[in-house]
Amino acid sequence: MREEDVFETLRGLGFDESDTRTLAYHFLDAEQRGKTGHGFTRVEWLTTRPVDLDPGARPLRLVQEPGYERWDGNGALGYLTLAAIVDAQLADPPEHARLVVAQRCFPTGMLGYWTRKLAEGGVVAALTATSPPRLGHPDGGSKLTGTNPLAIAIPSAAGEPLVSDVSMGRVTYGEVLAGGASEDELVPFGGEQAHKAFALAVGLQLLVDSLVAEQGHGAVLLVARPEADPLPALRARAAGLRLPGDR
Amino acid sequence: MREEDVFETLRGLGFDESDTRTLAYHFLDAEQRGKTGHGFTRVEWLTTRPVDLDPGARPLRLVQEPGYERWDGNGALGYLTLAAIVDAQLADPPEHARLVVAQRCFPTGMLGYWTRKLAEGGVVAALTATSPPRLGHPDGGSKLTGTNPLAIAIPSAAGEPLVSDVSMGRVTYGEVLAGGASEDELVPFGGEQAHKAFALAVGLQLLVDSLVAEQGHGAVLLVARPEADPLPALRARAAGLRLPGDR
Repeated sequence: MREEDVFETLRGLGFDESDTRTLAYHFLDAEQRGKTGHGFTRVEWLTTRPVDLDPGARPLRLVQEPGYERWDGNGALGYLTLAAIVDAQLADPPEHARLVVAQRCFPTGMLGYWTRKLAEGGVVAALTATSPPRLGHPDGGSKLTGTNPLAIAIPSAAGEPLVSDVSMGRVTYGEVLAGGASEDELVPFGGEQAHKAFALAVGLQLLVDSLVAEQGHGAVLLVARPEADPLPALRARAAGLRLPGDR
Repeated sequence: MREEDVFETLRGLGFDESDTRTLAYHFLDAEQRGKTGHGFTRVEWLTTRPVDLDPGARPLRLVQEPGYERWDGNGALGYLTLAAIVDAQLADPPEHARLVVAQRCFPTGMLGYWTRKLAEGGVVAALTATSPPRLGHPDGGSKLTGTNPLAIAIPSAAGEPLVSDVSMGRVTYGEVLAGGASEDELVPFGGEQAHKAFALAVGLQLLVDSLVAEQGHGAVLLVARPEADPLPALRARAAGLRLPGDR
């Protein structure tokens, strides 16, 4: 798939120009960062209608308070729901902190993409999201939890934010979709300490599942105003080593 | 050290009866759960005055809003600061969600202990805390980040909460103190995927460092009211496998 095919395909699925751009920019950024499992393969995946596609659906903000919001995907793709949430937070950042719960929000793509936008706008962000059960217990049994990435992005007055975006799987489902990994490799990362990544995935799964008021895959986002700018000192101590999210 | 020695030692350090009990119960629970690095070794460690001990110091709540609080350890031990924060959240839980930032809050002990108390009181909790730099970049160089555990606790009407409590180190500093591991083993967990645990540790480190208004080790706690009770279904699917935090 070429870049122009992405736009054409999305338009062909019925998305308007604004949503087409929102979706395409996410997929193109994923490709450019080498996260191909969140890139063009997902455009093809959308054409197979793995989810009930309603290109006209719009997410709803059900609750809006200074420190808390609850959104519902309302039939819109998770990508578009998160994009709307990010725009809303940047338009009205919290005085101190706000928790945003997004129910019926799937698929959510490369979580670091959304938190990076928030950090580029000066907001500290932490985001997790659930997906179908794909990771089993290290001792065996059925699949119990999604790969449930945790993305944390930290702004800095000195330049690029730091963006940490970690899936709890040894490989991502996107890599399986992209043909770069087999389903057998879709286990908690960590080898002999896989129980740690499994525990993180289960904790994040239940965090989301306990905060959504409608069952289904969802996302939980924390946004906060920074009180300090610790990134330049960390970069100085790292002395040129590549930090999470750097190109 | 025996159980009664814990109380005697703490009293000897100048703590009053209430603080002695608060501290002792944490250390005893750590021992009982096999997390000896957070148990009796820490009582001995306190007697070496690794921190400026002021047994009469009391943490302060500097900001109090429905969705946000900022606390300052004010010279009190981090354990006592977190205990005061937990009590305050249980006395006045958020209508929806609240972020609590604790600055100058060290040492914080077994984070799952504090989140378990919140979940036992019906509150969803996620907590991280920083410590001195003990983990280096997988590619080498100096120590850049604390082991920065992430603890998530989920209440359930059906019984015991789930408590996921994961340090990003292959071993904990407490295990090094307890003699069960060497400093060389204090690296990000995950073997060939240690970059993932390193990224999590760095993300959590900067999350705390960017939200505290006074530099130093701190903690960030999210508390929220659950909208759902997903734990019984997960336990059913796990079919008897041990889930995080279970004895």
